[in-house]
Amino acid sequence: MNGADLLCDTLLANGINVCFANPGTSEMHFVAALDRKPQMRCVLGLFEGVVTAAADGYARMADKPAATLLHLGPGLANGLANLHNARRARTPMINIVGDHATYHLRYDAPLTSDIDSLARPMSCWVGRATTANEIRAMTEEAYLAALAHPGVATLILHADAAWSGHEGEAPTPVTVPARPKADAVKVREAAGLLRSGRKPAIILGGTAMRAAALEVAGKIEAGTGAALLTQRAARWERGAGRVTPAVVPYPVDHALRALKEFDSVVLIGGTAPVAFFAYPGKPGTLLPEGCRILELAGQEHDLAAALAMLADELGVGSLRPSGIHPYTAPDLPAPTGALTSDAIAVAMARALPEGAIVCDEGITSTRRFSELAATAAPHDHLPITGGAIGIGIPLATGAAVACPDRKVIGLQADGSGMYTLQALWTQARENLDVVTIVYSNRGYAILKGEMRNVGVNDFGRNARRMLEIEDPALDWCSLAKGMGVEAGRAETAEDFIRLFGAALSRKGPFLIEAAI
Amino acid sequence: MNGADLLCDTLLANGINVCFANPGTSEMHFVAALDRKPQMRCVLGLFEGVVTAAADGYARMADKPAATLLHLGPGLANGLANLHNARRARTPMINIVGDHATYHLRYDAPLTSDIDSLARPMSCWVGRATTANEIRAMTEEAYLAALAHPGVATLILHADAAWSGHEGEAPTPVTVPARPKADAVKVREAAGLLRSGRKPAIILGGTAMRAAALEVAGKIEAGTGAALLTQRAARWERGAGRVTPAVVPYPVDHALRALKEFDSVVLIGGTAPVAFFAYPGKPGTLLPEGCRILELAGQEHDLAAALAMLADELGVGSLRPSGIHPYTAPDLPAPTGALTSDAIAVAMARALPEGAIVCDEGITSTRRFSELAATAAPHDHLPITGGAIGIGIPLATGAAVACPDRKVIGLQADGSGMYTLQALWTQARENLDVVTIVYSNRGYAILKGEMRNVGVNDFGRNARRMLEIEDPALDWCSLAKGMGVEAGRAETAEDFIRLFGAALSRKGPFLIEAAI
Repeated sequence: MNGADLLCDTLLANGINVCFANPGTSEMHFVAALDRKPQMRCVLGLFEGVVTAAADGYARMADKPAATLLHLGPGLANGLANLHNARRARTPMINIVGDHATYHLRYDAPLTSDIDSLARPMSCWVGRATTANEIRAMTEEAYLAALAHPGVATLILHADAAWSGHEGEAPTPVTVPARPKADAVKVREAAGLLRSGRKPAIILGGTAMRAAALEVAGKIEAGTGAALLTQRAARWERGAGRVTPAVVPYPVDHALRALKEFDSVVLIGGTAPVAFFAYPGKPGTLLPEGCRILELAGQEHDLAAALAMLADELGVGSLRPSGIHPYTAPDLPAPTGALTSDAIAVAMARALPEGAIVCDEGITSTRRFSELAATAAPHDHLPITGGAIGIGIPLATGAAVACPDRKVIGLQADGSGMYTLQALWTQARENLDVVTIVYSNRGYAILKGEMRNVGVNDFGRNARRMLEIEDPALDWCSLAKGMGVEAGRAETAEDFIRLFGAALSRKGPFLIEAAI
Repeated sequence: MNGADLLCDTLLANGINVCFANPGTSEMHFVAALDRKPQMRCVLGLFEGVVTAAADGYARMADKPAATLLHLGPGLANGLANLHNARRARTPMINIVGDHATYHLRYDAPLTSDIDSLARPMSCWVGRATTANEIRAMTEEAYLAALAHPGVATLILHADAAWSGHEGEAPTPVTVPARPKADAVKVREAAGLLRSGRKPAIILGGTAMRAAALEVAGKIEAGTGAALLTQRAARWERGAGRVTPAVVPYPVDHALRALKEFDSVVLIGGTAPVAFFAYPGKPGTLLPEGCRILELAGQEHDLAAALAMLADELGVGSLRPSGIHPYTAPDLPAPTGALTSDAIAVAMARALPEGAIVCDEGITSTRRFSELAATAAPHDHLPITGGAIGIGIPLATGAAVACPDRKVIGLQADGSGMYTLQALWTQARENLDVVTIVYSNRGYAILKGEMRNVGVNDFGRNARRMLEIEDPALDWCSLAKGMGVEAGRAETAEDFIRLFGAALSRKGPFLIEAAI
């Protein structure tokens, strides 16, 4: 048994049995080891940005990390943008990145690069396994770091560590420490803040966005009047019958207006909102000056317990939670005529199956659906978290691997969809139950808005050439066909309703090109 | 006039008039500035790996840098794998990477990351423009660094530096220092080494692989018997009538056999060959022990001058160069029947147009063409240089932007082609004269060989699932159609000859899916 086998066994011993991969020569001993472990499910992505986002989607839904297998610095580099999103989502993940044999590094062979420098910006933990004997301890350390932070742990595996024999015992599961509880003193302070505030709010994120935790938050709102807010939560259990926090708007002016009255804010898994970008003359932080902010618990804490302790302290346990919407979406009139993103939102909200997983990289096209979601069937919402476009199709892919019995619906802007379209092939290969809706507006619509924000209204040739993606128009049905995914094009609301219904009534991947 | 305008003007003043781009919100002021400069040609890539490889292909053929425009850390990250290749190719390039306004960094907004840490491994120069007033000096420094090294210079442009006014004059061209000449003492030493060696060789790279420089190298070979060798030269002026160095083989055992007799080696733009990867029990360096190695000139030097000085010292200036092949490829019998990579090689060598630019990411499929190339019409050969797959289609795209009057032929493995297939869209958008030949063998053929190298001959499910990319088969004609590129599928040699002929006889992009 060599180091590569030991790495596989350590992962398996700790319940990690899915590996999203795109290996290369330096990882061949690890591939050979994986081939000896049929209990590890290896899922190939045809590009590393697919691999890392799929691992993100998987972990958000499985509530445990997947492993990734990446080929040296360039393979890691290709996966970094979606590791950036995973880092912002606080998704636990273990990247295995191959490197040359330790003694080969000095020759600066063509594929040599500074992997640590590449990995560090997106990782909460980076380590190198230089000998087979240290692989078990390093893998366990990576696993515990990924869970504790939670975040992306990157384990660099030298080829000679993988191919050498080792002397250790067969791995057994490590003991994972329980998440720390919120500080009791802070709980009392938070309760005081919510009681004394003229206009208090709680900003929720992480596992505080699961239905049971939100139920408790809803009781706190009922008892204190504190508004519940959220922003880009990695996984939000949403829909009718569930407590629904309000979303801090993306445009700075809207956010400032929405937040201007708050004087007391408690953070439970969320962060104090900041502007996504700086704009001349506009502030970078969005809460009003003088607002008192207390972080009760961060994502490393047990957030459900923090909410329970706060509810206890406030004595709101028996109240009926606020902020629950009834299941009214099916009563909306069916859209007709021209296809718009709003028509898609209504059609989707009406027909959304219970337990659906909605992966949302709709960028400018899914605002209306966000408004309607609270009245649709209960579902999970997985958004782009770090602003690095190209997460959507592979995120849905990974979520579908984690939850084969739930329908996954990908809401996909066309510009960002092109970044990692290769994920459609993995959906076909694994026969994943994903409906991808491509909002085909043939431009980087968000950037056209931002150009107007910087005062440019008449675009010249260069601006048009950089912000529009028509000429030629992308034909998403052909792209999907090229990767083995069935597809249909909707030009009217009626088309969309028909195609969406058909896609929901069958298993397996399907893509709808929605011409909006 | 703001900092963004100044940056554009500084680039234009120094002859940089092509910008491969995929911008985002933090770059909107720069996009607005580009929009005011119609003399700058902005070429959009639908993914940053397309942008950086296109800039590489452009600079290899234009002999001057292009600019790239990338969106923050994730945008840069997406381009890094092909920056790795550009770094190994020693391609001059100026990356403009947007960053938040300086004062916004402290808020750790979602798209914030450590851009320096990401840029450094692939860049010979990294700088930050934090105010408009320093933009001109920083841009000039980046330009000079990119040329001198030569390599990838990364200029991080803060949004507030871009949008602020500045006080400087309109930029004028900087004085670019001449490349240093080789040291005269070393020239004498090199001449002595070649004269005294039992079996001498010269390893060529960089601009020493241009036809005129190779002609001089051929005279040195004629006068001294020194073998001419090369490895992954970024641009090789190759074909009938030109001096043709031998290529150091990729497999370690073959390379060791090919090099085992050499006792004296002079490096002129090349490096001492090392194994691409380490293998248990095999050496990492490929020249025999005790071989005397002298670096006469590196890629920062004037390599043509180094060869001329050496030829002078050896008194070989009037000799007829060795290593020239006649134009015999058209006399090869036309292949018939089943389509193989060898049949494609013969068909291509027979019909290759003079002045073609062959961009080669064929990996396992283009060995035969490499052998025949010396007998085909004179052409340029641009290979993958750093082993980071996904360079081919965008490299061809950039070369075609640089040389609109030459036919570009992309030799593309299917596995690596999927990495940056989005470049086909740019070929369609810009109506570039590129024929892409996809070797559709439906697997990572090179890795199957490497698995056998590690002793695995019977692949189990996991190995098959990671090394084969059939099930579903990729349909490259549909993929091309989806991005507006015409395509045809060749299943026999006759099909291929017909499609290749048709593609050569017209302008504009065309893709041939070659079922091998």
